[in-house]
Amino acid sequence: SDNFFLLAGPCAIEGEDMALRIAEQVVTITDKLNIPYIFKGSFKKANRSRIDSFTGIGDEKALKILRKVSETFDVPTVTDIHEISDAEKAAEYVDVLQIPAFLVRQTDLVVAAAKTGKVVNLKKGQFMSPGAMQHAVQKVKDAGSEKAWITDRGTMFGYQDMIVDFRGIPEMREFAPTVLDVTHSLQQPNQTSGVTGGRPDMIGTIARAGIAAGVDGLFIETHFDPANAKSDGANMLDIQYLEKLMTDLTAIRKVINTL
Amino acid sequence: SDNFFLLAGPCAIEGEDMALRIAEQVVTITDKLNIPYIFKGSFKKANRSRIDSFTGIGDEKALKILRKVSETFDVPTVTDIHEISDAEKAAEYVDVLQIPAFLVRQTDLVVAAAKTGKVVNLKKGQFMSPGAMQHAVQKVKDAGSEKAWITDRGTMFGYQDMIVDFRGIPEMREFAPTVLDVTHSLQQPNQTSGVTGGRPDMIGTIARAGIAAGVDGLFIETHFDPANAKSDGANMLDIQYLEKLMTDLTAIRKVINTL
Amino acid sequence: SDNFFLLAGPCAIEGEDMALRIAEQVVTITDKLNIPYIFKGSFKKANRSRIDSFTGIGDEKALKILRKVSETFDVPTVTDIHEISDAEKAAEYVDVLQIPAFLVRQTDLVVAAAKTGKVVNLKKGQFMSPGAMQHAVQKVKDAGSEKAWITDRGTMFGYQDMIVDFRGIPEMREFAPTVLDVTHSLQQPNQTSGVTGGRPDMIGTIARAGIAAGVDGLFIETHFDPANAKSDGANMLDIQYLEKLMTDLTAIRKVINTL
Amino acid sequence: SDNFFLLAGPCAIEGEDMALRIAEQVVTITDKLNIPYIFKGSFKKANRSRIDSFTGIGDEKALKILRKVSETFDVPTVTDIHEISDAEKAAEYVDVLQIPAFLVRQTDLVVAAAKTGKVVNLKKGQFMSPGAMQHAVQKVKDAGSEKAWITDRGTMFGYQDMIVDFRGIPEMREFAPTVLDVTHSLQQPNQTSGVTGGRPDMIGTIARAGIAAGVDGLFIETHFDPANAKSDGANMLDIQYLEKLMTDLTAIRKVINTL
Repeated sequence: SDNFFLLAGPCAIEGEDMALRIAEQVVTITDKLNIPYIFKGSFKKANRSRIDSFTGIGDEKALKILRKVSETFDVPTVTDIHEISDAEKAAEYVDVLQIPAFLVRQTDLVVAAAKTGKVVNLKKGQFMSPGAMQHAVQKVKDAGSEKAWITDRGTMFGYQDMIVDFRGIPEMREFAPTVLDVTHSLQQPNQTSGVTGGRPDMIGTIARAGIAAGVDGLFIETHFDPANAKSDGANMLDIQYLEKLMTDLTAIRKVINTL
Repeated sequence: SDNFFLLAGPCAIEGEDMALRIAEQVVTITDKLNIPYIFKGSFKKANRSRIDSFTGIGDEKALKILRKVSETFDVPTVTDIHEISDAEKAAEYVDVLQIPAFLVRQTDLVVAAAKTGKVVNLKKGQFMSPGAMQHAVQKVKDAGSEKAWITDRGTMFGYQDMIVDFRGIPEMREFAPTVLDVTHSLQQPNQTSGVTGGRPDMIGTIARAGIAAGVDGLFIETHFDPANAKSDGANMLDIQYLEKLMTDLTAIRKVINTL
Repeated sequence: SDNFFLLAGPCAIEGEDMALRIAEQVVTITDKLNIPYIFKGSFKKANRSRIDSFTGIGDEKALKILRKVSETFDVPTVTDIHEISDAEKAAEYVDVLQIPAFLVRQTDLVVAAAKTGKVVNLKKGQFMSPGAMQHAVQKVKDAGSEKAWITDRGTMFGYQDMIVDFRGIPEMREFAPTVLDVTHSLQQPNQTSGVTGGRPDMIGTIARAGIAAGVDGLFIETHFDPANAKSDGANMLDIQYLEKLMTDLTAIRKVINTL
Repeated sequence: SDNFFLLAGPCAIEGEDMALRIAEQVVTITDKLNIPYIFKGSFKKANRSRIDSFTGIGDEKALKILRKVSETFDVPTVTDIHEISDAEKAAEYVDVLQIPAFLVRQTDLVVAAAKTGKVVNLKKGQFMSPGAMQHAVQKVKDAGSEKAWITDRGTMFGYQDMIVDFRGIPEMREFAPTVLDVTHSLQQPNQTSGVTGGRPDMIGTIARAGIAAGVDGLFIETHFDPANAKSDGANMLDIQYLEKLMTDLTAIRKVINTL
């Protein structure tokens, strides 16, 4: 396919049923539009602002659900890892290991992920320039793997806002295939409540701009009922809007491919 | 036309010959692509970093050249004003009065521009949020005119860089037709040399993203020989690349119009 | 005196009585503490966010009040100018002409101020680096005057916050005597309401840090009743707290002078 | 003592001899000035920009040197931890466990540190507001410990610069004793070279401002030969300047204590 690829799914794996239902919906859409699809779900959440936030249903249980999604729909899967010991464990179940933005400077974690032979999806730190991501990619290469992706999830802009720097897209594509995370790049962190806010009304705008700027892939968290999701509800896309969004973006991509 | 409109021309009017030659080239391209075109040129430069920077060829002389361009090619023109007394003077010669970003908070200047009955193109201050532009537009309305445009020319990001916040496009379009200035939003100010730098290699990326995000118009400074231009050489587009750029953007716009 | 100097007064001259009462209070304090004092008051406000904001009581009337304060208490005065024509006019009445931060890149205004022979107090643009202020100071020098001051009033940090970069104090002191404006550097601009907010609870912290970092002077707006002031109420210091603040800062300054 | 306390030492433990020599020098100074002193040294460096950066001499070896410093000079020690398993290991050797800024959102790491009963020194993320640190402190409390400190090491300002927000000092002191890290808050990250730069000429300015703003402690990396240090040479203070700096800061602190 010469379409963009899509990493999508719920923020956290809340249970088997919800994972399968979300995957089924997304697969239906991406099959129709010829979008290569990777199912996304976190098996644990380790970096919440507050200790009383939801952190998961159990690692093993969540990872097995990821495998079941993969087998059921014949799609690859991606999950994020937080500890060196997570790398091998998660690699048994998924195809892409994602390094969270806060952790992308932790050399041992990146190297551990690279050594599994899986694709390593390196999230750009909110505190990093696009150019600095070349050093993260180089760590994957130095660990013996060529399979690195970069995902932009926005950059700090003052304390309580993030911004996407589209100049970074062509710059990072020099280093590795580059994904735009339209969910987290619209976060508004450091809110007084201790719960991250967001601008989900801007998902379409940022996604369209990303496709026009030449991203290789998109990352979108989606859920049947974002308001009641156990984490990141503020920014997930209600799945009922996904087909229209993917259809529009595919149309833009088609014209971009001809330029 | 349901294409975007274009404000383009040299940074400063350096002379009649160069103005006519640039206008002729742009008109040829925009006629072919059905892009409504407004010729842009500053009749003086009043806010240079250094006192020894080029400031103009004489106000009257430059304004007459703007009128000649308008008459020769039957296109409207735009120029920027810096003093209250500039408003009436420039309004005799041009169709759109532009308020520079640094000056957009100067109420008397905005009101003077509005009272001429010409379109007032309000540049978003580098220090302003998209939302704050509603107050600038309101000043035009309070002065009795409905003819306001907004132009985004980027936002300060640290001392020596600017960034375009594409979330601002739909937000500002709620207030007035919104233009993306791809030239100045790629500036890199506050360089040690006292001469503003830039990222002209990113013009295509930012312009594509802007069209995808739904801008009404684009602002591009262009010149036959940017390296030898008398101001802002660092960011002007070499005119030889303009046709390809406009062609690509028109293709993207066409698909955007269908979504 | 080897104490810091103080620019203080109300944001805007609201009337003769309030100006004289404020000056009297400040003079009493600064005389006791041996702080060289310059009375501050704007004779007009030209850059409000909203057109319905208070803009002044009349230029001539306000300037005459500034002269009366000067004669009554034998103190110099400072006011800000917004148009080239303001320079000569204000220079007849005051000792220091202040260039507002938004306007500090307007060469003609800076030159007009310098040519009056008065001290030119250049406010650092919210969008400028400390280093870039050398070009503003150079414009004063190129206009034939050596009498330039720099005043830091904070730097944009995201859309709705400002921050003081204390590294800039020694850097700007290389160019000219440097003042810290503790009132405006605590502003929080671009609020949805169109009225700038602030953090007046931080005045003491920022002022102490400024004295410790070696500023030559401080700028503080003060009022008997900030909540009912006609402009900038959000950040002015209630004058009842001024004596304690000046006493504390003088104590810090004394030890700084010995290091 | 009512003086500030000091966390100081080399960036990384490069060997026993250098650690003891640095500690001896600092102890001599802090004893004279009545500054409570905690010896600082990293036993490993885990978050270098580039994989070929120095990462340590061996965990056990470095930790034993920390204990030897403690016993030799009767001073407490602090080191930073990067993995959950580091917490218990390091707690056997040191008195304060430091959570690196990049990792301060990793709940499991903070909780593991808190559960050792040692003081947990939480570095404010470069991407966090001062107010958001209350959630990090709360995690320590929720894990059953009251022993949390906060250390400010600056905040991202654009891609390649950091800034210290002194408004954060009184704000964070509401949550826990607050330290200013004058070494890392002067970093200039994301340099093209992959090696972080800095502004060590500003150590005195920032430290003075910090004491004036009321910090409880200071964090300074120091070395006999910063240019040849194995990590962070760009910002470490040459130890020959430490006594003068501490003497000056003690003088400022004395007057602050009287206000």
